[in-house]
Amino acid sequence: MSANKIVVIGGVATGPKAAARARRCDPKAEITIIEKGDFLSYAGCGMPFYIGGIVKEPNDLMSSPIGVVRDASFFKSVKDINVLTRTKAETIDCSAKTVEVIELSSGEKKKIPYDKLVLATGSNANRPPIPGINLSNVYTLGNMNDAIAIKQALLKAEVNKMVLVGAGLISLELAHAIQELKPGMDITIVELMEYLMPAQLDPEIAALVGKHLKQKGIKLLTSQKVSGFEGQGQVQKVNTVTDTLDADLVVVSAGARPEVELAVKAGIKLGPTGAIAVNEYMQTSDPDIYAGGDCAENVHFVTKKPVYIPMGSTANRHGRVIGDNVTGGKDTFPGVLGTTIVKVFDFNVGRTGVSETEAKKLGYGVTTFICPNPDRAHFYPGHNLIVIKLIADSKTRKLVGAQIVGTGDVNKRLDVAVAAISMGTTVDQLANFDLAYAPPFATAMDAMTHAANSLRNKLDGRAKSISSLQVKEKLDRGEDFILLDVRSPKEYEEARLPYANVKLIPLGKLRERLGELPKDKEIVTFCKLSMRGYEAQGILEGEGFTNVKFFEGGIAAWPFEVDTEKFKEVKTNA
Amino acid sequence: MSANKIVVIGGVATGPKAAARARRCDPKAEITIIEKGDFLSYAGCGMPFYIGGIVKEPNDLMSSPIGVVRDASFFKSVKDINVLTRTKAETIDCSAKTVEVIELSSGEKKKIPYDKLVLATGSNANRPPIPGINLSNVYTLGNMNDAIAIKQALLKAEVNKMVLVGAGLISLELAHAIQELKPGMDITIVELMEYLMPAQLDPEIAALVGKHLKQKGIKLLTSQKVSGFEGQGQVQKVNTVTDTLDADLVVVSAGARPEVELAVKAGIKLGPTGAIAVNEYMQTSDPDIYAGGDCAENVHFVTKKPVYIPMGSTANRHGRVIGDNVTGGKDTFPGVLGTTIVKVFDFNVGRTGVSETEAKKLGYGVTTFICPNPDRAHFYPGHNLIVIKLIADSKTRKLVGAQIVGTGDVNKRLDVAVAAISMGTTVDQLANFDLAYAPPFATAMDAMTHAANSLRNKLDGRAKSISSLQVKEKLDRGEDFILLDVRSPKEYEEARLPYANVKLIPLGKLRERLGELPKDKEIVTFCKLSMRGYEAQGILEGEGFTNVKFFEGGIAAWPFEVDTEKFKEVKTNA
Repeated sequence: MSANKIVVIGGVATGPKAAARARRCDPKAEITIIEKGDFLSYAGCGMPFYIGGIVKEPNDLMSSPIGVVRDASFFKSVKDINVLTRTKAETIDCSAKTVEVIELSSGEKKKIPYDKLVLATGSNANRPPIPGINLSNVYTLGNMNDAIAIKQALLKAEVNKMVLVGAGLISLELAHAIQELKPGMDITIVELMEYLMPAQLDPEIAALVGKHLKQKGIKLLTSQKVSGFEGQGQVQKVNTVTDTLDADLVVVSAGARPEVELAVKAGIKLGPTGAIAVNEYMQTSDPDIYAGGDCAENVHFVTKKPVYIPMGSTANRHGRVIGDNVTGGKDTFPGVLGTTIVKVFDFNVGRTGVSETEAKKLGYGVTTFICPNPDRAHFYPGHNLIVIKLIADSKTRKLVGAQIVGTGDVNKRLDVAVAAISMGTTVDQLANFDLAYAPPFATAMDAMTHAANSLRNKLDGRAKSISSLQVKEKLDRGEDFILLDVRSPKEYEEARLPYANVKLIPLGKLRERLGELPKDKEIVTFCKLSMRGYEAQGILEGEGFTNVKFFEGGIAAWPFEVDTEKFKEVKTNA
Repeated sequence: MSANKIVVIGGVATGPKAAARARRCDPKAEITIIEKGDFLSYAGCGMPFYIGGIVKEPNDLMSSPIGVVRDASFFKSVKDINVLTRTKAETIDCSAKTVEVIELSSGEKKKIPYDKLVLATGSNANRPPIPGINLSNVYTLGNMNDAIAIKQALLKAEVNKMVLVGAGLISLELAHAIQELKPGMDITIVELMEYLMPAQLDPEIAALVGKHLKQKGIKLLTSQKVSGFEGQGQVQKVNTVTDTLDADLVVVSAGARPEVELAVKAGIKLGPTGAIAVNEYMQTSDPDIYAGGDCAENVHFVTKKPVYIPMGSTANRHGRVIGDNVTGGKDTFPGVLGTTIVKVFDFNVGRTGVSETEAKKLGYGVTTFICPNPDRAHFYPGHNLIVIKLIADSKTRKLVGAQIVGTGDVNKRLDVAVAAISMGTTVDQLANFDLAYAPPFATAMDAMTHAANSLRNKLDGRAKSISSLQVKEKLDRGEDFILLDVRSPKEYEEARLPYANVKLIPLGKLRERLGELPKDKEIVTFCKLSMRGYEAQGILEGEGFTNVKFFEGGIAAWPFEVDTEKFKEVKTNA
């Protein structure tokens, strides 16, 4: 029997991983990677860090953890894999089972036969047809050459005003990176939707990130469609439907679209998202052709619906499954949760599973809770706050999503949520996970345990609560209710909600001062985090008040203005 | 109907939590906490940090996250819970349903009636009957008074030599704390068993922690029974069976034993571990009496066997379940995994589930893998190494245990393992969890994904490997085999295994230098982490070598001496 011929198109993430795994599974296979560019296995996710200067050289993104640059000769000598760089796959003949390639320097064409073909053609940054998008200094960030060009432009003395179009992951990472590279830079992010990271977050969580951006001096304009770019050769102005912004430099981040041209020409089916459709074995409509990474569609693990969520981590996992299956294996890929984590200045922002917004769109009944908590023992120095929003299926009580933000350790809790959702965990089970505790690492009841228990209280009808945005809407509508602050006078003096219907009764005095509260009026209690607000609700209900709720997350999760000016005349003599 | 009378004995962790939860579930219950000491709700786990000076005042361990000291008046005014401090419960009359208490200051006795009783009597530090243990400056660390006394002793100028008896969590935290408080201190840890943290870790993982301790100047003597303490009034010497150590100060950490005297007198049944036996509702043998926290036994979630693993986190979870159940609920506690995390100088040390050592003792067939990996993208500054050992049931492929150590982010991966074990996750499922990735937080394939995939390779018979300890045993027995180092000459020059049978052939040259290796001899390949060692095994097997394995973890997980002196004459011309 002659050797299994495996041809891989694409040399960034899925491709090399699939090839390397295939080699491990079949020492005798003939394996070839075709890559149109110069670079192999580079870490595209590192580009903003290169721009910011945290990563010094483009090459640092191309070496393996042990410092070996993974070029063609590395693949040949170590893995016995042939790599053709600067070589473009032009057509696939599915019946003859050949790929026609062109060597870009020489223009030479040849046909490469395959037994199994892997499409790992990646994605391209979207370049929306906005008038003026071809002016110089208007960029997208799709590859290393873009990153190098953006950095060069940034370093010019005359570049001082930057507009980032789109408030997604890349713009947020870039805002941070650019401020590190050039602290004085004027940076504005313009977003079409009502809030930042609209594909990932719910509005009240996004608002917390937005508040942090503002603290860091980044301007954020939401619900603003960019209508055009203006300038003499080089961009000078960004026009939105209502506004005009000065700009020396623009980076447009309008998402990515899968590179599917080759697949489409070969008659391979796309899915509803426009990416290549694959089954659980990562096989396309042609069973000898596999696809993975940014060119392929995924199934959402919770909703079971096709999604297009290109991620470096997914691309690598795809590669292993494909490597197995092109060498006779039967490995499966179970789908994705859309897990995302991003460092936005001092804020860590993570999410996984379905958001409340998505759930509502899909018609799922979900119950959510927003719970701020320190990430470590409150007596251990350096502890920081994280705000956890958990989203559970109201009927099954299974966790289906989580959004976690804050200056503390978001990373750990996010992956607990990932594991929990992946295994169909109920919030009741989650609450009793024997999570790691020692003062430098967590609180005795971990932040996730608290969040899960709070959500259990809500699911059980014990905790009656609304979100910060719902409170704000009530205020904006001028509703007649009492905002009952149950914190201490000292806390009140440090920071207050600036509304006339706020009344301060510290929790410790609440039982003796019940007479000050009307039993028939709506009362919304709150505190710094949520626990005293919840206790206050319990006390008032226990005393026969019938229209009481607390607002989730308290001051810690309040995304709007807080009055922090010290003043003497505290509203209460408590 | 008269109010439900709930009496809680013990005011540290489980007790106040149970009482607070009971109040939330039943606003009308009469709730009383009886505490023999002065302190309520203090964080016992913070004591080493108080000694080290990271936590400044004992009071810092007693306030809530918002800075409120939780004293009796706090419990009364906020939670309407009566707290009797300096009050000792002397007897329980189970048929009359009363607790007889004595007010310690006045000597006054009274009987308190209950409908439901909660035993949260905690534990005491063991004080083994070693000759001389009552000399002054020989301490155990069981409560805040001990902590204060130890700190006072440490701060004396004449105290310079310290012996810590027992190499468990407390001694390791203390060694770190004491070196922070008094950097010049001579510290020796003496352990009866063969390696440190014997109740938690497997030997090759413990050896990595031991190596780190040594680097920090802490002496560790293992397999050494302490036979006595000597001195004139104050301790001066610690005698072991083979040695004598000078000591000005000794802290004996010989574990804790549950405080069960009251329960035993009342005829309440103990379990095989000597702690109070409870069912899944945390009910004792008397259905109106519940027990939780350090005085109660737990079920191990994996083995389903009774275990005694007192932990602050567990105590708090017990409290919630009990609070529900004494007010008519039916909540259950599913058991523990013995999750532990501890900061030992720059090393984070975590473990959960069953160890390989325990699994062997219990007769379980397990397969394990040791996998070092950076905790974040290798190009992101500040990334650090973590070494993950995963333990899976060989038949079901379910994860049953994990041990993770290193200077990197152990905390996150440990809790992923906790979640995975809790939900019966196979390593195949674990490998495809959509874990969070961005360069500041993880590698594209997270360290846990790598570890899970490596263990899959081993379970599938693809990876053939042995542990560092097995390699060392082969060396010590003088076996004839080749230790094939497949790293680069540069890495070899920086650090080498100091054995005559080491041969260097960099992975990239292996295919062309196969002729230098005998096909019939045993070859053990290795590299810095494990990946190239594994690749080398694959290459050699592909080329017809039949007796090849690699050693797991490579240099990064090698707990013995490494030759780091630079030398010119590299053993190969590669």
